[in-house]
Amino acid sequence: MSTQVNDDSALVERAARRLEWIRSRMPLLAGAREHFAQTQPFAGHTIGMSLHLEPKTAILVETLAAGGATVVGTGNHGSTQDDIAAFLRSQGLTIFGRRDDTLEQHHENVAAVLDARPSILLDNGADLAAGVIARGSVAGVGGGESSEGSADLGGAAVLGGTEETTSGANRLRAELAGRVPFPVIVINDSVLKQIGENRHAVGQSVVESFMRITNLMIPGARFVVVGYGWCGRGVAQYLRSLGGKVAIAEIDELKAFEAALDGYRVDSAVGLASWADVVITATGQPGVVGPEVFAELSDGVVLANCGHFPWEIDVPALMASATKAVAVDEAIDRIELPDGRSVVLIAQGRMFNLAGREPKGNSIQSMDLGFMLQALSLERVALGAAGLVAGAQPVPDDIERTIARRLLASMAASL
Amino acid sequence: MSTQVNDDSALVERAARRLEWIRSRMPLLAGAREHFAQTQPFAGHTIGMSLHLEPKTAILVETLAAGGATVVGTGNHGSTQDDIAAFLRSQGLTIFGRRDDTLEQHHENVAAVLDARPSILLDNGADLAAGVIARGSVAGVGGGESSEGSADLGGAAVLGGTEETTSGANRLRAELAGRVPFPVIVINDSVLKQIGENRHAVGQSVVESFMRITNLMIPGARFVVVGYGWCGRGVAQYLRSLGGKVAIAEIDELKAFEAALDGYRVDSAVGLASWADVVITATGQPGVVGPEVFAELSDGVVLANCGHFPWEIDVPALMASATKAVAVDEAIDRIELPDGRSVVLIAQGRMFNLAGREPKGNSIQSMDLGFMLQALSLERVALGAAGLVAGAQPVPDDIERTIARRLLASMAASL
Amino acid sequence: MSTQVNDDSALVERAARRLEWIRSRMPLLAGAREHFAQTQPFAGHTIGMSLHLEPKTAILVETLAAGGATVVGTGNHGSTQDDIAAFLRSQGLTIFGRRDDTLEQHHENVAAVLDARPSILLDNGADLAAGVIARGSVAGVGGGESSEGSADLGGAAVLGGTEETTSGANRLRAELAGRVPFPVIVINDSVLKQIGENRHAVGQSVVESFMRITNLMIPGARFVVVGYGWCGRGVAQYLRSLGGKVAIAEIDELKAFEAALDGYRVDSAVGLASWADVVITATGQPGVVGPEVFAELSDGVVLANCGHFPWEIDVPALMASATKAVAVDEAIDRIELPDGRSVVLIAQGRMFNLAGREPKGNSIQSMDLGFMLQALSLERVALGAAGLVAGAQPVPDDIERTIARRLLASMAASL
Amino acid sequence: MSTQVNDDSALVERAARRLEWIRSRMPLLAGAREHFAQTQPFAGHTIGMSLHLEPKTAILVETLAAGGATVVGTGNHGSTQDDIAAFLRSQGLTIFGRRDDTLEQHHENVAAVLDARPSILLDNGADLAAGVIARGSVAGVGGGESSEGSADLGGAAVLGGTEETTSGANRLRAELAGRVPFPVIVINDSVLKQIGENRHAVGQSVVESFMRITNLMIPGARFVVVGYGWCGRGVAQYLRSLGGKVAIAEIDELKAFEAALDGYRVDSAVGLASWADVVITATGQPGVVGPEVFAELSDGVVLANCGHFPWEIDVPALMASATKAVAVDEAIDRIELPDGRSVVLIAQGRMFNLAGREPKGNSIQSMDLGFMLQALSLERVALGAAGLVAGAQPVPDDIERTIARRLLASMAASL
Ligand SMILES: NC(=O)C1=CN([C@@H]2O[C@H](COP(=O)(O)OP(=O)(O)OC[C@H]3O[C@@H](n4cnc5c(N)ncnc54)[C@H](O)[C@@H]3O)[C@@H](O)[C@H]2O)C=CC1
Ligand SMILES: NC(=O)C1=CN([C@@H]2O[C@H](COP(=O)(O)OP(=O)(O)OC[C@H]3O[C@@H](n4cnc5c(N)ncnc54)[C@H](O)[C@@H]3O)[C@@H](O)[C@H]2O)C=CC1
Repeated sequence: MSTQVNDDSALVERAARRLEWIRSRMPLLAGAREHFAQTQPFAGHTIGMSLHLEPKTAILVETLAAGGATVVGTGNHGSTQDDIAAFLRSQGLTIFGRRDDTLEQHHENVAAVLDARPSILLDNGADLAAGVIARGSVAGVGGGESSEGSADLGGAAVLGGTEETTSGANRLRAELAGRVPFPVIVINDSVLKQIGENRHAVGQSVVESFMRITNLMIPGARFVVVGYGWCGRGVAQYLRSLGGKVAIAEIDELKAFEAALDGYRVDSAVGLASWADVVITATGQPGVVGPEVFAELSDGVVLANCGHFPWEIDVPALMASATKAVAVDEAIDRIELPDGRSVVLIAQGRMFNLAGREPKGNSIQSMDLGFMLQALSLERVALGAAGLVAGAQPVPDDIERTIARRLLASMAASL
Repeated sequence: MSTQVNDDSALVERAARRLEWIRSRMPLLAGAREHFAQTQPFAGHTIGMSLHLEPKTAILVETLAAGGATVVGTGNHGSTQDDIAAFLRSQGLTIFGRRDDTLEQHHENVAAVLDARPSILLDNGADLAAGVIARGSVAGVGGGESSEGSADLGGAAVLGGTEETTSGANRLRAELAGRVPFPVIVINDSVLKQIGENRHAVGQSVVESFMRITNLMIPGARFVVVGYGWCGRGVAQYLRSLGGKVAIAEIDELKAFEAALDGYRVDSAVGLASWADVVITATGQPGVVGPEVFAELSDGVVLANCGHFPWEIDVPALMASATKAVAVDEAIDRIELPDGRSVVLIAQGRMFNLAGREPKGNSIQSMDLGFMLQALSLERVALGAAGLVAGAQPVPDDIERTIARRLLASMAASL
Repeated sequence: MSTQVNDDSALVERAARRLEWIRSRMPLLAGAREHFAQTQPFAGHTIGMSLHLEPKTAILVETLAAGGATVVGTGNHGSTQDDIAAFLRSQGLTIFGRRDDTLEQHHENVAAVLDARPSILLDNGADLAAGVIARGSVAGVGGGESSEGSADLGGAAVLGGTEETTSGANRLRAELAGRVPFPVIVINDSVLKQIGENRHAVGQSVVESFMRITNLMIPGARFVVVGYGWCGRGVAQYLRSLGGKVAIAEIDELKAFEAALDGYRVDSAVGLASWADVVITATGQPGVVGPEVFAELSDGVVLANCGHFPWEIDVPALMASATKAVAVDEAIDRIELPDGRSVVLIAQGRMFNLAGREPKGNSIQSMDLGFMLQALSLERVALGAAGLVAGAQPVPDDIERTIARRLLASMAASL
Repeated sequence: MSTQVNDDSALVERAARRLEWIRSRMPLLAGAREHFAQTQPFAGHTIGMSLHLEPKTAILVETLAAGGATVVGTGNHGSTQDDIAAFLRSQGLTIFGRRDDTLEQHHENVAAVLDARPSILLDNGADLAAGVIARGSVAGVGGGESSEGSADLGGAAVLGGTEETTSGANRLRAELAGRVPFPVIVINDSVLKQIGENRHAVGQSVVESFMRITNLMIPGARFVVVGYGWCGRGVAQYLRSLGGKVAIAEIDELKAFEAALDGYRVDSAVGLASWADVVITATGQPGVVGPEVFAELSDGVVLANCGHFPWEIDVPALMASATKAVAVDEAIDRIELPDGRSVVLIAQGRMFNLAGREPKGNSIQSMDLGFMLQALSLERVALGAAGLVAGAQPVPDDIERTIARRLLASMAASL
């Protein structure tokens, strides 16, 4: 059974105040909210949502509701903030789930979203799209030019939707290839998002979280950043700018070259292991820091991951070789090794900029940017605009440019 | 009555684990602890302590106790961490006070420390020194060469001590001038501390706290830093290095000149007010951001202070002119002004890098440095070393150099 | 008539010594030279070359000659360094041209290169390719799979070649589209070149040249960089890192967005004009700084261009409105305007990092990189390798990766 | 015999144009020139000058002359720019010396300055002060309160003067201690100069000169800076900001500590030698890079010095152990060692930011600052102001502050 809740008003009030601060710093969504309130692009539509349920998400949801949408949603497993969910329910939206849901309950919440027969999907990891397709009765294929191209969910038709993540996009392009009859705009590959979020917001958030969780000194400390993609570049830049000594391990020679000219020491993870005070992974790949690296680490080195999946540091292998693991502080474990060395593992290898006490996540303005990509992409889908095709596709260039201009204006900049 | 407490073992256990992490990152104190354990410099001495009671302080206290000291102490008003105090008591130390003490109780705690007749003072704001002198019975004056130079507290004699703060030093040099018969080594004016703590640790801590409390984006945001002393330099440097646009207001033309050549925009606080997104004060002076500045601020500007006293932003004047004040989040208030603008005040103008949920304070290693200055200065006093004179004086140069060498060694650097 | 010269041995000796220093810092070409000496990829081939003739070029030419090539070449108009040309002649190569050639003589030099019936072209602005095609007798089309695909120059056949510039590539793709029967590898669009040269080497060279020519102070000075492409990013980064205040004018909103998040002030060129102390153009477009910008400039502002063409600053319009122009120093003119302001024009709007006394151009190692792209691309053409197609095309990915790995090794870095 | 010259008008004209550019960028001296023209502080005085004779110096001399001074001067040995000297003579000033003077002629030029019986000295290395004292007939001692305190040079009296360098100041305080009856204001120890010149201007000038002379790539290259004083801090900062990897060797533990917290690798010169691509000395001390360092250097390492004296790199020892020395380019020698390694020596160990073709020296504005300290200090001496004492002394604080304010104003900044 999906988790429906009776929320008390104290929770709602607490959320209302937190949201006020955040809302006041999301000017792009504020503009969209005002515009949608007049144009009602989502009138008559139900938006089915599956997205991390935290305060900034609530501002996106409000914005869609202001545009006439009936929003039926649920969060990710384990991260739903109950006061935020309560607040959204108090505004008349249908939100399933609470923080301590079991995985089974979470799946039931997703099913409950699909039961509401959404005509538009705001998806995350392609869970909703896969569900729609699994339920069958999807008719025709097309690009939004006509309603024939939409998927039928036993009556209602899915016009299309958005997908937040690259892994969801990969699923649409591989596992579900050829079976997605409606357009899905992939938010994560946008240039704006890569620069604004992956590079700058993650860079900022990683240094903030490192300081918040460990309380260690950055100037003079030796960091190895594994991966020099958008996130790795940001993490390396922000750490170095705070006085850290930064070295890069990267397996793509073109990016390694870029790192070297950016002035970083470049070597393999194994080659850098004995030099490191701290190792941070940002590759998206499994096991990039594994036994051969563990073997070379100095005593007391700190290991942390900011990639999406908790598999970049091979924690099972580390644990298997450990003699003891002590939780020394929130999100800090000391893993003792048979040879007398110990290793400090942050957040058990999970994305550590969302871990520890009071994680803030990416900056408010960077989420204003990211959610604005969602809002305008969903509007484009709702309007059944020409130019969209069935399946996964990038954010339309004109949307990127519109948002870039508005963000510049919000920073008092112009072309 | 001073606050003596029966602590439960859960508190003690929690503290023990937190301290383990911190202790493992304070190598300088670890070295001193080992050395003191052998040389017992404090054998037979009671150290009376008045110092902010947080985890890093506990490591200092342990170190003194290992050197044979009987430590009798209390914290600052309102900041004592109860688990840490409990832990120290469980180790047999006498620690007065708890977080929710009234001001009156706090004064009684200080009195209780004096009642223990300490022979050495670890002081903060000169409270203990003033208390000793007020209690009279201080005999003779001298520089530690003989016990005649010490202050008698009804039997016991004060050999000397340390003072953590510059304001305490000012009190010793003004209000108490000529009346301090024992040497007091002033920690805060040490070059190591100015560079290691005021510049780098405060710089790091301010950017961390700004991000932790506000969750705002730093790159592209416009910061005005008021004051370009040791802290201001650090704050400006760290904000700029994260991509902030930084301008400096400074009334000393030589420092303003330095700021200008360091590449900052330099102007008066009033001249910069309308440009600012965020204003951060770091001057040590009252009212540096007052009504004339408030008058020019843009709507929504954020105000924060990292100076020691909560008076740099003229909060009473701001409140007097406000129509409404709303607490929007922990340590964030929105102050509404009659002309429709609002101002966002962080931590009500108090030192904001120690405010908000889960403040961490300065980095562990920077406190290792600061407390090492304490440990070796107290040892110097305990040994009644030649070279010390009655009254406030800087940390002896050889102590600074010894610590610099050890810190370099701990960073794997050498001369 | 092409300019053939009898060179004296003093010139040759001077060049030999200069080249020794440069050769010692081009490890990539050194490696290629050794390899080519064994494999002789150019045996039996004549390479026709048209390329800026300065010391680093000579090292490329040596490398090709070591691989068995007969090199017949000429420089750009007006930039040939006579001692370098003399040196190459003394090594048995056929080099036409000298620094003070007229434009007509320069054209004759290019024709003389074509007369030598090269089988491989090392081209610059597509002059040689256009000449070959204009001379007709080009047979067949193909991608190196067979010799039919080559162009016949009255006996010899053009196998293919390289093109150094983007503008040459544009010519091949527009003006000569469909008429180029052999493969031409375009060097300038390589990722390695964009990062290694346009961003980092031009950034370095522009700050060096600004200081060398003007002797002005960078910290605190206000720079407007027009264009935030590869060159603009580098120029902005290097100026800011030296303490300059930098603002960006950019017409592409995505790049303007990037600049804003990189922490720069962003506005239109006109909007920034009155703020600027110095304006530097890097757009590749004509007239980006013209009358509307001139109208807003402060008195004494410095104008410079680092884009390829001397048209980015509208110098004719500036001169037309001037009352007087005074040459105050090498590459520095003061242009007086009727309203009493004056403007300081560097190098008359030409690419100023190659202007003034003793210009050095890009760093030796960055040219080692760029010329290595040439050397391996020419080898690929000479070997008639599969994978090449007729017309302009990017540097093959495996060549980029090979060079990246070697450059990393030369910097003592590894993957 | 001193070198008096008949200058041709071509030289004078060339200088006049060069000076125009420089004069237009020295706003502080322009202000002083205007003020002095009205107040005539130097009326009736002869200023005897011994100072590096390059274009910026000429603007200082003009300024003094505008204030009524009769200027009689000479340059340093070997650095006089003949066109500048010619220009000054054409303005009616008495300037001795030319670039190719012998050392003997140089001494005669200094003597000729003294023969002119200057009442005020603008000194450099204390040559003039020592000469005055050696000539005897110095009467009385005092601090400018009365003319008794001045030195008599056979009729005329020396009121006092300025000394540009720290080494001159040391001479006044040691060798000439107690024998200098007039006040000498030491320019070099001014805070403005340390920050504005030693740190920022030398930092800028060193990176410019390194690029200009060697044409090497900075990003990714490994620099060891020996000495972390004012110059070393600047050099390290500017190199790192351009992407260089920078390590510091420093024997003062407090400065080494500062360097470590500033994020640099810190070690001994010997410990860093094998890591270095480039070594730059900035200590003011002899032999800081000597045989033990040479023994560890990698093949091809570049050695340069920016300290005042050419003794920081032990060039004689290097040469003694060399098998061959080849001049590969202007200011670049390759020194071959018996074990097959070679070392690249820049400017034979002399201050390399004034070496090579077309050295520019410090930026114009930084010299405007330095010479403004001269101008106002000389005015203070001329006015026989109270507050000056006999012998070497710092620049009066009010002069520093006045200049700081004007420089801020010239950068459009204010307090
Ligand atoms: N000085 C040197 O040594 C070198 C010069 N270049 C030249 O520099 C120029 C720029 O090259 P890249 O940066 O690689 O090109 P790019 O294409 O990456 O960047 C040019 C940028 O200028 C912007 N732009 C165009 N018109 C503009 C306007 N009116 N106002 C503001 N921005 C405008 C474009 O949007 C683009 O972002 C080219 O001419 C190139 O040939 C390239 C390499 C070396
Ligand atoms: N090239 C130029 O344009 C200029 C050069 N200078 C010269 O640069 C030199 C340095 O000047 P400042 O930095 O102002 O002096 P400073 O006295 O501030 O710094 C010198 C530093 O070198 C360190 N040092 C001494 N011996 C050392 C050794 N064996 N190894 C490592 N470090 C050592 C000292 O501890 C000190 O920190 C002086 O000779 C000065 O005259 C000064 C201004 C301009």
